[in-house]
Amino acid sequence: MSHRLINLNADLGESFGAWQMGDDPALLQIVSSANLACGFHAGDPLIMRSTVRLALAQGVSIGAHPSFPDLQGFGRRAMQLSPAELEATILYQVGALQAMATAEGGRVTHVKPHGALSNIACADAAVAATVARAVRSLDPALILLAPAHSELARAGEAAGLPVRYEVFADRAYLDDGQLMPRSRPGAVLHDAQQCVEHVLAMLREQAIVAASGHRLPTRIDSICVHGDGPEAVASARLIRQALEQAGYRLAALDQLG
Amino acid sequence: MSHRLINLNADLGESFGAWQMGDDPALLQIVSSANLACGFHAGDPLIMRSTVRLALAQGVSIGAHPSFPDLQGFGRRAMQLSPAELEATILYQVGALQAMATAEGGRVTHVKPHGALSNIACADAAVAATVARAVRSLDPALILLAPAHSELARAGEAAGLPVRYEVFADRAYLDDGQLMPRSRPGAVLHDAQQCVEHVLAMLREQAIVAASGHRLPTRIDSICVHGDGPEAVASARLIRQALEQAGYRLAALDQLG
Amino acid sequence: MSHRLINLNADLGESFGAWQMGDDPALLQIVSSANLACGFHAGDPLIMRSTVRLALAQGVSIGAHPSFPDLQGFGRRAMQLSPAELEATILYQVGALQAMATAEGGRVTHVKPHGALSNIACADAAVAATVARAVRSLDPALILLAPAHSELARAGEAAGLPVRYEVFADRAYLDDGQLMPRSRPGAVLHDAQQCVEHVLAMLREQAIVAASGHRLPTRIDSICVHGDGPEAVASARLIRQALEQAGYRLAALDQLG
Amino acid sequence: MSHRLINLNADLGESFGAWQMGDDPALLQIVSSANLACGFHAGDPLIMRSTVRLALAQGVSIGAHPSFPDLQGFGRRAMQLSPAELEATILYQVGALQAMATAEGGRVTHVKPHGALSNIACADAAVAATVARAVRSLDPALILLAPAHSELARAGEAAGLPVRYEVFADRAYLDDGQLMPRSRPGAVLHDAQQCVEHVLAMLREQAIVAASGHRLPTRIDSICVHGDGPEAVASARLIRQALEQAGYRLAALDQLG
Repeated sequence: MSHRLINLNADLGESFGAWQMGDDPALLQIVSSANLACGFHAGDPLIMRSTVRLALAQGVSIGAHPSFPDLQGFGRRAMQLSPAELEATILYQVGALQAMATAEGGRVTHVKPHGALSNIACADAAVAATVARAVRSLDPALILLAPAHSELARAGEAAGLPVRYEVFADRAYLDDGQLMPRSRPGAVLHDAQQCVEHVLAMLREQAIVAASGHRLPTRIDSICVHGDGPEAVASARLIRQALEQAGYRLAALDQLG
Repeated sequence: MSHRLINLNADLGESFGAWQMGDDPALLQIVSSANLACGFHAGDPLIMRSTVRLALAQGVSIGAHPSFPDLQGFGRRAMQLSPAELEATILYQVGALQAMATAEGGRVTHVKPHGALSNIACADAAVAATVARAVRSLDPALILLAPAHSELARAGEAAGLPVRYEVFADRAYLDDGQLMPRSRPGAVLHDAQQCVEHVLAMLREQAIVAASGHRLPTRIDSICVHGDGPEAVASARLIRQALEQAGYRLAALDQLG
Repeated sequence: MSHRLINLNADLGESFGAWQMGDDPALLQIVSSANLACGFHAGDPLIMRSTVRLALAQGVSIGAHPSFPDLQGFGRRAMQLSPAELEATILYQVGALQAMATAEGGRVTHVKPHGALSNIACADAAVAATVARAVRSLDPALILLAPAHSELARAGEAAGLPVRYEVFADRAYLDDGQLMPRSRPGAVLHDAQQCVEHVLAMLREQAIVAASGHRLPTRIDSICVHGDGPEAVASARLIRQALEQAGYRLAALDQLG
Repeated sequence: MSHRLINLNADLGESFGAWQMGDDPALLQIVSSANLACGFHAGDPLIMRSTVRLALAQGVSIGAHPSFPDLQGFGRRAMQLSPAELEATILYQVGALQAMATAEGGRVTHVKPHGALSNIACADAAVAATVARAVRSLDPALILLAPAHSELARAGEAAGLPVRYEVFADRAYLDDGQLMPRSRPGAVLHDAQQCVEHVLAMLREQAIVAASGHRLPTRIDSICVHGDGPEAVASARLIRQALEQAGYRLAALDQLG
């Protein structure tokens, strides 16, 4: 039954030059889709290509993870780009990753904005529309992976893109479906078991389950797990095992049906 | 008759951010193929996209002009990249430009390395092979535009790529077909009429005509004219007019047959 | 009489690598102080050093013109840096220019923020305080060159820095002393003679003279003229001549007394 | 007795943005001088400033560790800069670090080139002279820290700079005093105890002790230990302890007398 398929995604390929981040080989054995940095916040060409190769070897589907141009700030700083410049900036990054995928015999099947660009695109309808327009102009069959109940998801739908909806395993939600700001206590779930229960509850209810207990119905296609930090691999593995024990079968984003 | 077709190419899209270089709109009315900077020596995403749009509107075929990563040095400084890194660096840039072309309803039909990368690839068979491998892994139908009698041309042929052979309108040649080093007097032809005669002589002889008068037979598909400098537009226009008066018809690289 | 001394400043050293901007040698014969790009929005090390050398040879005093790290956007895009990061970013740039000055036997005598950083520091007291703190931590004798009636000027005073107050030759003002937004008609004075009259009126009144005719008294130490654009040199020369004819003597910022 | 003073130096401050490298707080408790990245191969402004602060708090003397502009390659790739550009590039980086030191109440007391720049400056007298000229033009009292028997050391002496001579704890030497290329077996000593014996032998002999057993007399002021890698801290600590047990007292480079 297709409703028992679920996707697990993580941000990977975030090393740069001599600097390592995350344990990509381990995580690529756990997740079913990978959002790969495209050189603007992390991920130089060599790392992009080698991570693409690893992902393809593991049957993990590949997504572009475009960012504001901000290597030093890891794409986490808000920047103000004109719509035309933002659109071109996204095209550039996705195209660069597509070339890596092509050279390795695969293809990019989804796009998920990174960091500050994602935050703004989730809240600002105009920026969201620019992101969706960039993706659509490149390939209208590219999946847009977006948080449920975000402006980004709505913009993707309006643009006619296939949209897949994600929730975060380790983040608490407000009643309106937005992430609780990191500045508030309890915003981040640090305990892996707590993450597992959060994920299972949301899937069971097919709703975002807010910290208050409030339920906001939504379709959930994918669970986002963290790719970095000392507990990332163990936590992701626990979540995957719990999903499988609960009867879900993991599938790449382009295999969800 | 197909031997009367000739291509005229120039390096364009070499502005960056607030800085202008060259008069692209004027040159795009003269040349038949454009080699576009891909962000590593010049050409930010916005400039790449707008230049692609201009080129397509003029019926000018689009080529990627990848470089070493060296914005400050305009890609003119030799760098030592490992073969794997160089290959990924080329893929990245060509892919980024392909995305711009796709978004504008066109496509990248050729690749021509820039600056120091080109110089090295023309002289060093191993680097040439890496360039050819990168292009081929992306699309074996991509045309490699290479100087006649270069290692790069040979590597393209060995890789099975469609290779097109160019000569330079404003550069003097040595007897072995290599460019006379810029440090030598007479290496660069500054007079437009002199360039015209140089080009016509080489086409008439189907040979590289060295400064000594020596003739080195070669196939010539394309004439490279300069895109920058105060005389660039006037000189390119004069060369085009002379070619047309000599009975040649200009054609994009992918229309040479 | 010291009130008859006036400073003329311009943003210079804004070329980068192969790209030229402005006619620095010509402007350095006109202005008495130069704000030099420090590599983050323009100005690579080689250009910094050669412009420092030219300025010293002309007796033009040298200021650092630090920016957000944004070469592609020419420092004109707002970025959100933490106070600690902004402070370190300014220190970095001013220090780099100080080294050039030292190597050429001179010194940096003032600091003037560039572009979006300047706009924000003029309006946001917290950012202004960070800028002033950075300058002060480096050298409490460094002059802060700031627009009259700006938060930046106030922050410099509060930090105990020597502050010099500038007005713009080619910009219309609002009644509260702020620049008229460029989006409004008449915001930029394109006619050189009009700039001359604007400058002379403000100096005569010792006030910002708004477009409405409203006068806002202020001390005026320096006139900022544009360093770029086709009319920059001619316009700056006209303003200088008018100042001299009106009895002013031009002086470097550190010679105003 | 001054000959019983020894310096221990390491390359630190080599994190960048979100990426960590090395355990600087631990190493700053062991070494007596730190070579700090200046933003061109590693070390953004924030990291530079915080590492300067840590070093000063530990009484560790601060050196600039300038590099070719190559963040992605960590400064390990040879680049060809003109003498003027290389000189300006070094000035820029050292000046930026000097500003951090000044803001923290300290000062930069030495310079040691990084990576490929160091390798080339140790072998090429012209590049070495350019490095020495840059340092001297900034401050003739700046110490140049250079490998014993290198062109760089000779250029520093010729320029009248105070030169301090270093040997590497974990590298095998050839008979002529040059480092054994990393491609040869035994070039790098991976065992900490072996490093200790290597260091003590060289100090005892006041000579470079080559892998062959050959002794090349030299003055040794400083031992370079690695700042990165899983064993870096433990190995550096062992070397320090061995030096102290052998009767040496550690001193900052500017305290060697």
